[in-house]
Amino acid sequence: MSWFEETLYKNVRQSFNVERVLYEGRSKFQNVKVLQTVEFGRMLVLDGVCQTTEHDEFVYHEMMVHLPLFAHGAAKRVLIIGGGDGGILEEVLKHPVERVVMVEIDDRVIEVSTEWLPSICGRAFADQRTHLLVDDGARFVAETDERFDVVIVDSSDPIGPAEVLFASPFYSACKRCLTADGIMVNQNGVPFLQSAETSNTYKNLKLIFPHNGFYVMPVPTYYGGFMALSWAAMRDLRAQAAVEIEGRVARAGLSLKYYNAGIHQAAFALPEYVRKLLV
Amino acid sequence: MSWFEETLYKNVRQSFNVERVLYEGRSKFQNVKVLQTVEFGRMLVLDGVCQTTEHDEFVYHEMMVHLPLFAHGAAKRVLIIGGGDGGILEEVLKHPVERVVMVEIDDRVIEVSTEWLPSICGRAFADQRTHLLVDDGARFVAETDERFDVVIVDSSDPIGPAEVLFASPFYSACKRCLTADGIMVNQNGVPFLQSAETSNTYKNLKLIFPHNGFYVMPVPTYYGGFMALSWAAMRDLRAQAAVEIEGRVARAGLSLKYYNAGIHQAAFALPEYVRKLLV
Repeated sequence: MSWFEETLYKNVRQSFNVERVLYEGRSKFQNVKVLQTVEFGRMLVLDGVCQTTEHDEFVYHEMMVHLPLFAHGAAKRVLIIGGGDGGILEEVLKHPVERVVMVEIDDRVIEVSTEWLPSICGRAFADQRTHLLVDDGARFVAETDERFDVVIVDSSDPIGPAEVLFASPFYSACKRCLTADGIMVNQNGVPFLQSAETSNTYKNLKLIFPHNGFYVMPVPTYYGGFMALSWAAMRDLRAQAAVEIEGRVARAGLSLKYYNAGIHQAAFALPEYVRKLLV
Repeated sequence: MSWFEETLYKNVRQSFNVERVLYEGRSKFQNVKVLQTVEFGRMLVLDGVCQTTEHDEFVYHEMMVHLPLFAHGAAKRVLIIGGGDGGILEEVLKHPVERVVMVEIDDRVIEVSTEWLPSICGRAFADQRTHLLVDDGARFVAETDERFDVVIVDSSDPIGPAEVLFASPFYSACKRCLTADGIMVNQNGVPFLQSAETSNTYKNLKLIFPHNGFYVMPVPTYYGGFMALSWAAMRDLRAQAAVEIEGRVARAGLSLKYYNAGIHQAAFALPEYVRKLLV
């Protein structure tokens, strides 16, 4: 037994009792580790920062996927940028989509997740609807001719390889790849401790999309209270009738651990300290 | 500089960079500490567990107070059980209440908070409407003849002095102290890591009150995602019209950091993993 202490923040830390280091290696981009923790099951760690765990991945992955997909209601083509652990992909494939393109820059993350985190990615990488590209997501959205109903940006924090995924040119290119009723969502950190990320993304997206905002959910291993996911679209997702979402969710009949129709609406309600960041 | 590591859970820990220990002592009931942390300002620690901090106390205190008080709409008499740091009391006094009785078992917590945490308790203990009793809260509610519009149970976790505040006899006695349209709320831990607390409270309150449930909010220093507060009343607080709450909140014109009318409604939406505990 040993303890893994995350080093994301200078003055507050979370640490996990670890039974075993299952994998450790260095990819072209980052240090990659899989730990067997006692409390959260297996954990993927990139450059010393917890990315996902078996026990709480459902909060983040369900909210990144089911909120935009049920808001859209008829998504056929979905683009995932990043998401190398396969958790987003697995949730997307629960919907009747026809084609999912996933562009992950670091193939080592995919290989390691396939081998060590099957409870997170399932058989998603082997699904016939999955089209996996090991490439730079920013370049892909700038160059592709394909159009998508939903674009999901499952990046790490805006330091290191994911930095370009938080900049205006990337958001503009994503908009170009969306169908007319398309929706984009992005992970945006924890506003209580990473407030600059929230306000910068809000400002950048506001210049590009007619409607944008955040929705929130607390992920236990993303320390610091609510995590904020940003959304951007041609219409206001908050204005959608609750009964429409309820009907879609009921008809889909998915068995989930976090998302439901009530949570869909509630997640758009922002506490005052987050609202104040949106100027 | 040193680090304070909280020892609430066996296999997951949070730790805080500490500039200075401002106070440390032992009361009749528990070890009491006030730390100057870098990230969260001053922190009150009881028996090794973080109770509240200057920087994130607003999440918990605002939700414990403003949700039941705005749901009630005309509360004149409020009872606080526990709450020795004064944070609940200070929020209650922002409303036009006539009398607030606070029953805290450990006078050392009150003394230490008055001296070291003025930014949390303000001048609440000196307010003319405040009636402070250093006594056993369970005995008080069993014996008093007074009736209250809102009862707020701001306890520590159900180990040590607060254990009786999670048992059926205490809940029955609280009901006896409520006016006909009265509301009780209790802190109930973090369901992701303390699920037994959530289900036990739900079962116990269901036998005593016609309506009860939970509402949720993530407090950064209460590790593990959503914290659950339980509510119990003669009517279903979730059924209250949103416009009624909006009107009351707008007329009150409080300047808050977490609570608003949207959050009031949204906090009743429970994720599936919490809903499953309510059987």
